[in-house]
Amino acid sequence: MRNDLYIKAHYGESIPRYPVWLMRQAGRILPEYRAVRQKLSGFKELVETPSLAAEVTLQPVDILGVDAAILFSDILVVPDAMGLTYEMIEQRGPFFPQTIRSEQQLTLLDENPDVLDRLSYVFEAIKLTKKELNNRVPLIGFAGAPWTIFCYMVEGKGSKTFSESRKLLYTNPQLAHELLERITDFTIEYMRQQQLSGVDALQLFDSWAGILGHDQYTEFGLKYVHKIASAFRGFPFTIFSKGAVASLPEIAKIESTAIGLDWNMDIQETRNLVGETRTLQGNLDPCLLYAKDSIIVKETNKLLDSFKSQRHIVNLGHGVYPDVDPEKVKILIKTVKDYEIKYN
Amino acid sequence: MRNDLYIKAHYGESIPRYPVWLMRQAGRILPEYRAVRQKLSGFKELVETPSLAAEVTLQPVDILGVDAAILFSDILVVPDAMGLTYEMIEQRGPFFPQTIRSEQQLTLLDENPDVLDRLSYVFEAIKLTKKELNNRVPLIGFAGAPWTIFCYMVEGKGSKTFSESRKLLYTNPQLAHELLERITDFTIEYMRQQQLSGVDALQLFDSWAGILGHDQYTEFGLKYVHKIASAFRGFPFTIFSKGAVASLPEIAKIESTAIGLDWNMDIQETRNLVGETRTLQGNLDPCLLYAKDSIIVKETNKLLDSFKSQRHIVNLGHGVYPDVDPEKVKILIKTVKDYEIKYN
Repeated sequence: MRNDLYIKAHYGESIPRYPVWLMRQAGRILPEYRAVRQKLSGFKELVETPSLAAEVTLQPVDILGVDAAILFSDILVVPDAMGLTYEMIEQRGPFFPQTIRSEQQLTLLDENPDVLDRLSYVFEAIKLTKKELNNRVPLIGFAGAPWTIFCYMVEGKGSKTFSESRKLLYTNPQLAHELLERITDFTIEYMRQQQLSGVDALQLFDSWAGILGHDQYTEFGLKYVHKIASAFRGFPFTIFSKGAVASLPEIAKIESTAIGLDWNMDIQETRNLVGETRTLQGNLDPCLLYAKDSIIVKETNKLLDSFKSQRHIVNLGHGVYPDVDPEKVKILIKTVKDYEIKYN
Repeated sequence: MRNDLYIKAHYGESIPRYPVWLMRQAGRILPEYRAVRQKLSGFKELVETPSLAAEVTLQPVDILGVDAAILFSDILVVPDAMGLTYEMIEQRGPFFPQTIRSEQQLTLLDENPDVLDRLSYVFEAIKLTKKELNNRVPLIGFAGAPWTIFCYMVEGKGSKTFSESRKLLYTNPQLAHELLERITDFTIEYMRQQQLSGVDALQLFDSWAGILGHDQYTEFGLKYVHKIASAFRGFPFTIFSKGAVASLPEIAKIESTAIGLDWNMDIQETRNLVGETRTLQGNLDPCLLYAKDSIIVKETNKLLDSFKSQRHIVNLGHGVYPDVDPEKVKILIKTVKDYEIKYN
C-alpha cells in the first residue's frame, strides 16, 4: 500500500500526519459523480452496476486526494438482499412497499438468502475498485448496523422519530430481537464477503443510534454491534453510532480498532474512556465546509491541536452535505496534510 | 390553587406525590380535540381563536387528569408576530414563504412589533383558560428558545439537519447573533405578557438544541436561553433543550427552577450536576405509551423508584405521539398518582 496512513492509524502505529477522508465522499458533491448519475435511470442502477460503482468510488481519490476510498453503495442493499426490496424516490429517500411489524410479516424475508448471489454486484465492485486503486490508498467497506437497518424495515421509510420501529421494542420485543438477529447474521456474512473480496477496512454505520434511550440502545443496538465487531477482531473496524453520546462508555468496551464520533461527541472525553486502545475518527461539523477558507483552516487546525495522541483519523461528524463546494473539501484536506504530528 | 403539586415541585417544597403532565397533551391524541379541530379551516385558526385555544387547553385537565394545563399554542407565533408569517401545511408542517439569510432579509422583520397587539389572541386565551380552570391546576405558558425559532426563520421549514440555519453560524455569525438577539428580546416581552396575563409557570422549548455541537450551542443557544431565564428568576421556569446531552453541565449553571430531560438524558447524572437546586422534569420514552398496560405501569414505577429526591415532575421526554391511545396516558397518570414519595 503506497499510502497506508489510514490503516496505520487504526493500529496506533507511528504516522507522520493524520489521515483524512469524508463520509459520503463518493457521490453527492462532485460534478463528475453527477455526470455519471444523470445518465442512469436511478440511484439503485448505480449501486447495482459494479463498473459504475467502482468509477464513482475512485473519483474522490483522484479529485480530492483523500487517504482512503469508501465503496459507493447503500446500507439498504442488506434488507433488499434479505427479501425486502426498496425503491429510492428522488428528493424523498428510500421507500419499502412492505414492512415487518408482525411475526406474519417476518415471512416476507427469504429463509436463507445467499449473500454471494444476492450481493454479487457489491463484491464485483470491490474487486474492480481494488484493481483500479492499484494500492494507492486503502478501500473501506461498510454496512448499516442492525438497529438502523431494522428501523427502515419496520418503518418503511425515513422518519424523524421512527416511532413505528421504537413501538415494536415495547409491543413485541421478542419479534424485534428475532429480526435484529437475522439482520446481524446476514450482515456478518455480508461484511465477511466484502473482506474476502478485498476491502482493507470496515465501518459499521448506526445512523439512528441516537433515537434510542441508553438502556434500549444497549439491548437492541449495541448487543448486535458487539456481535458483528467480534467477528472482525483484529481487522481495521470502525463503529459509528451517530447521536449515541450517552452510550460512549459502552461503545468503548466493544472491541474494534476505531470509534467514529459525531460533532456532539467530545473527543477528550472519549479519549479518557478508551485511553490509547482505540483510534478516534471525526468529528468536524459538516457545516464548517460552508465557511470561508480561513475559517475552515482555523477550525481544522483547532481540531488537530486538540488531539493528544496519534490515534486519530480526520473526518466530518456526519456525511458531507450535498451542496458543499468540492473546493472547500480540498481546503480541509490540505490543512490536514500540512499538519505535522507532534507525538511520534 | 387546589392542586399545586406542580408549583411546589418547582420550588422543592414537600409534596405527597409527584406531579405529572404531558408535553403536547393539549391536542393531537384526544378525540375531543379533533372534534374542535375539524370544524376549522386550519391549525392557525385554532391557535388564533382564544375561546377555542382555551377549550382544548382544558380538555386534558378534564379528561386525563393531569396536574398542570399547558396553553394550546405554537412556538411559531413569535416569528409570525415579528413579521415573518408562516403557513401550517397539513401532513407536512410549517412553511415560511420568506426566510432570513442575509442582512437585507433582516428588514423583512418589523422594527418594533408590539407584542400586546400582535399576540393579543394568546393573552386572551390565557385569561379565558385561567378563568375556566378556576384554580384547579396551574397553567403553563411557553415559548420556543431563540435557537429553535432561528432555525425556522432561516430554514423556512422543518429539516433533518437544518443545514441552512447552521451554515449561517459559519458564514455570517454576526447576522446570526443579531437575529438571535431580536428573537430573544421579543421572547422576553412575550413571556412577560404571558406572566402578566396569568400563567403560573413558563417553559422554554429548545427543540433543535441537539443539532449543534457543544461549543456552538453554548455560543448561539445557551447564551440566549440564559438571558431569558434570568428575566424570570424566582418564577417557576423550565428549560428543555432537547438532545443537548453534552451541554447539561452548562444548562445546570443557568438559573431556572427546573430542567426538562429527554429520554437520552440520564436522571442520576443530571441530579449529580444540579444537586437539590433544580427540579428535573421527564423523561419517559413517548413510545412507552404503545406498550401494554402492565409494561407502562412497570416502566413508570421503575422511573419513580429511580428518583432519589422530591424535586421531580413526571413527563415524557418529548411530546406525546399523535397516534397514542388516551387510555394509555391514563394508565401512566394513575401509576404516578398511586405512587407515594418516600423522601418527605
